[in-house]
Amino acid sequence: MRTVIVVGTGLIGTSAALALAARGVEVYLEDHDPAAARTAVALGAGTDDPPDGPVDLAIITAPPAHVAAAVADAQRRGLARGYLDVASVKAGLFRDLETLGCDLTSYIGTHPMSGRERSRSLVANADLFEGRPWVLTPSPVTETEVLNLALELVALCRAVPVIMDPESHDRAVALVLHTPRLVSSMVAARFQDTEDRIELLCGHGIRDVTRIAASQPGMWIDILSASPGPVVDVLADIAADLTDTIAALRALQSADDAKRRDAASGIEDLFRRGNAGRAKVTGKHGSTPKTYDIVAVLIDGQPGELARVVADAGRAGVNIEDIRIEHLTGQQARLVQLMVEAAAAPRLSEALRKRGWPGPEASVPHGEGLEKGPV
Amino acid sequence: MRTVIVVGTGLIGTSAALALAARGVEVYLEDHDPAAARTAVALGAGTDDPPDGPVDLAIITAPPAHVAAAVADAQRRGLARGYLDVASVKAGLFRDLETLGCDLTSYIGTHPMSGRERSRSLVANADLFEGRPWVLTPSPVTETEVLNLALELVALCRAVPVIMDPESHDRAVALVLHTPRLVSSMVAARFQDTEDRIELLCGHGIRDVTRIAASQPGMWIDILSASPGPVVDVLADIAADLTDTIAALRALQSADDAKRRDAASGIEDLFRRGNAGRAKVTGKHGSTPKTYDIVAVLIDGQPGELARVVADAGRAGVNIEDIRIEHLTGQQARLVQLMVEAAAAPRLSEALRKRGWPGPEASVPHGEGLEKGPV
Repeated sequence: MRTVIVVGTGLIGTSAALALAARGVEVYLEDHDPAAARTAVALGAGTDDPPDGPVDLAIITAPPAHVAAAVADAQRRGLARGYLDVASVKAGLFRDLETLGCDLTSYIGTHPMSGRERSRSLVANADLFEGRPWVLTPSPVTETEVLNLALELVALCRAVPVIMDPESHDRAVALVLHTPRLVSSMVAARFQDTEDRIELLCGHGIRDVTRIAASQPGMWIDILSASPGPVVDVLADIAADLTDTIAALRALQSADDAKRRDAASGIEDLFRRGNAGRAKVTGKHGSTPKTYDIVAVLIDGQPGELARVVADAGRAGVNIEDIRIEHLTGQQARLVQLMVEAAAAPRLSEALRKRGWPGPEASVPHGEGLEKGPV
Repeated sequence: MRTVIVVGTGLIGTSAALALAARGVEVYLEDHDPAAARTAVALGAGTDDPPDGPVDLAIITAPPAHVAAAVADAQRRGLARGYLDVASVKAGLFRDLETLGCDLTSYIGTHPMSGRERSRSLVANADLFEGRPWVLTPSPVTETEVLNLALELVALCRAVPVIMDPESHDRAVALVLHTPRLVSSMVAARFQDTEDRIELLCGHGIRDVTRIAASQPGMWIDILSASPGPVVDVLADIAADLTDTIAALRALQSADDAKRRDAASGIEDLFRRGNAGRAKVTGKHGSTPKTYDIVAVLIDGQPGELARVVADAGRAGVNIEDIRIEHLTGQQARLVQLMVEAAAAPRLSEALRKRGWPGPEASVPHGEGLEKGPV
C-alpha cells in the first residue's frame, strides 16, 4: 500500500493519516471544511492536494447518517482501488450501500474501536489505535485484495484486526458500548435526588457501575439512531431479568417455603450467569484466572511519597503488575495497593517494612486482582 | 470506654476487637463456636474469659436473620450498658427488636461499610474500618450515652461516623450495594453465550459496569432476604427508565419527525440525569470537579521499569495523584498513565523525555480523571 486518501479529517481520519504518513505511505487529505484538512496537513498527516489518479485505499470517515452517501460519492469519483468506512454501525450501512447501488466488491466495512468513545486523548495522534481492536466486516463479494488493503491499514496503525459479520459486530457493539452507557446512566440517575452525603457511602461497586454515566451525551444520540435494533434486543433481555428479579425479591419474604426457595435460586442463578458472562468480558473463561496478591502501604500523600514506595519495591526486585491508590475519606493519607505475583508478596512486604513503610501487609485480593487485555 | 464484649468473632467482630485492644480497651470475646473465639484470642483480639460484670458496650455481630434474637439474648444476660449491632439492614431489624420487647434506650443500630462486601482483606485486621464510613442509626429513645459509646467505637476503629435514620440507611444501601450488584450481573449475563473473542472488543465501559458481577453470590441472598423492599423500589425505578428507553430507541427510526425528536430528547434526558446522579456518587455536585492531566508513557513491562518511571517523575518534583496501567492486547508493553495537576503536566512530560522515556505525552483526561473519597 503506497497511496491512501482520507476523506474526513476528524480525530479518527487524522490519527490514521498520521500513522500511515509516519510509516511512509503517501497520504492525501480531504474534508468538506478545507480549514480542517489544512490543520491535518500542519500536523504532518499528509497533503491536501488532490491525487493525480486513483489511490490504493480510500478511508471514508463521516457521521453515521452520512457514511453511505460519502462512500457512494467517493466511488463515483473513482478515488481508489478499495474503499472502507470507520462507522460504528455495519449491517444497516451495508443495506444502504446496496440501495445506493455502490460497488460492493471494492468496499469493506470497518470499525476501529478506539474512537471518541474511549480515546485517551482528544487530539489526533498516530498511536490512537495501538493495541486496540479494529473490526473488519468483509461481505461475501468483497475482493480479497480489498480485505488485504484493510488488513495492511490495521497493521500500519498497530491495531488488532478482528473479522466479524456485520450483524455480529452490531450486536457486539450494542453489548460492549451502548448497553453499559445506557444502563450506567439508569443506575446513576437514581442518585439525582439523594442527599449530598450519600457520597460517603459509595464504594467501589457503585463507582465502577456508574463511571461511564459521567461522560457527555455528545455523539451518543447519533450513534444510537444509526442502529437502535440490537440495543433494543439487549435492553429487552435485561428488562426480562429485571422483572424476574423484582418478583423474586418480593417472594424472598413469602410465608411459603417453596416460594422462598424458588426466589432465592432465581437470584442465585442470575449471579451465576453474571459470573459466567463477566468471565467472557475479561477473557478468563475456561482458563485459570491470573490473580495477584496485594501489598498495601499507607503513605502520607506528600509529593514524592508514592515515587519512593514504588522505587523501594523496585529495589526489592519485585515487578509491580498494577497499582491502585485509595484516597481515604477526610484524610491526606492514601492507601497504595501494589499488585504483585503471589510468590513475591511476602518478600515485598518484608522489604518495605525494613525501609520503614507503615503497615505493608499482604492480602488476597477480593474478587479479581488485575485484568489483562484491552482496557 | 474501658470494657467491651464482642459477641461473634467473624471478620467484623474480630477486626473491631483488634482495633479496640490495640488502643487499650479491655475486650471480651464470645462466639457460639468456642474455637472461633480462641482463634480471635490467638490473634491478640482479647480474652475469651467471661467478664465479671456488665461491660461498657456489647458489639453484636450475627447473620441478618439472627441479629434481633442475639441482641435480645445479650440484654437478657445484662452483658453491657450499651448494645449495638453491625448488620446491613436497619429498619426491619428495629421493628423486630420492638416485637421482641428489647430495651431500645440502651440499643443503637450501626453498619460499618467495610465488611465482606468490600474488604481488601479476607482476614481480620485492626485497619479494616480505617477511613471507611460507619453508619449509626440512633432511634428517638436511644440514650445519648449509648450514642456516644458508639461514636467512641467508630473513632477508635478510625472509621468515619455517618448518622442516618434506619429507612434512609436501608434505601442508601439498596442504592450503593445491592443495585449495582444485581444490575451488573444482569448486564454481564448477556455475555454468557457470546463468542469467546468478544473479550477483544471489551473496553473500559463494559469492564467497569460488569466488574462487580465477578464476585461470589455468597452472602448476598441472606442480605437481600433481610430487607428486599428498598431494593425492589430502586429496581422498579430502573425498570421504568428501561421501558421508556426501549420505546425511545424504537422511535428513533420513526418516519414522524416529532416522534424522533421526542425520542432523542428522552434519551438525552436520561444521560443528563445520569450525569447529575454520577456527580452525587463522587461528591462532585455543586463544586468544580478536580481533574488531572494525564502524562502517558510506554514501558516494556520488564521488572523495575514502572519503578524507574515513577522515580524519574518524583525526581522532577511532580506529585503523582493516581496511576493507571493499561496492558496492551497481545503485547508485553504497557501504557502507564500518570495523573498530575494540570500545571505540572508539561514539566513532567519534558523531564521524562529528557530521561529517555518513549512518548511521554500529556493529554486531557477523558471524562473524569481521578476520583476522590472512599473508594
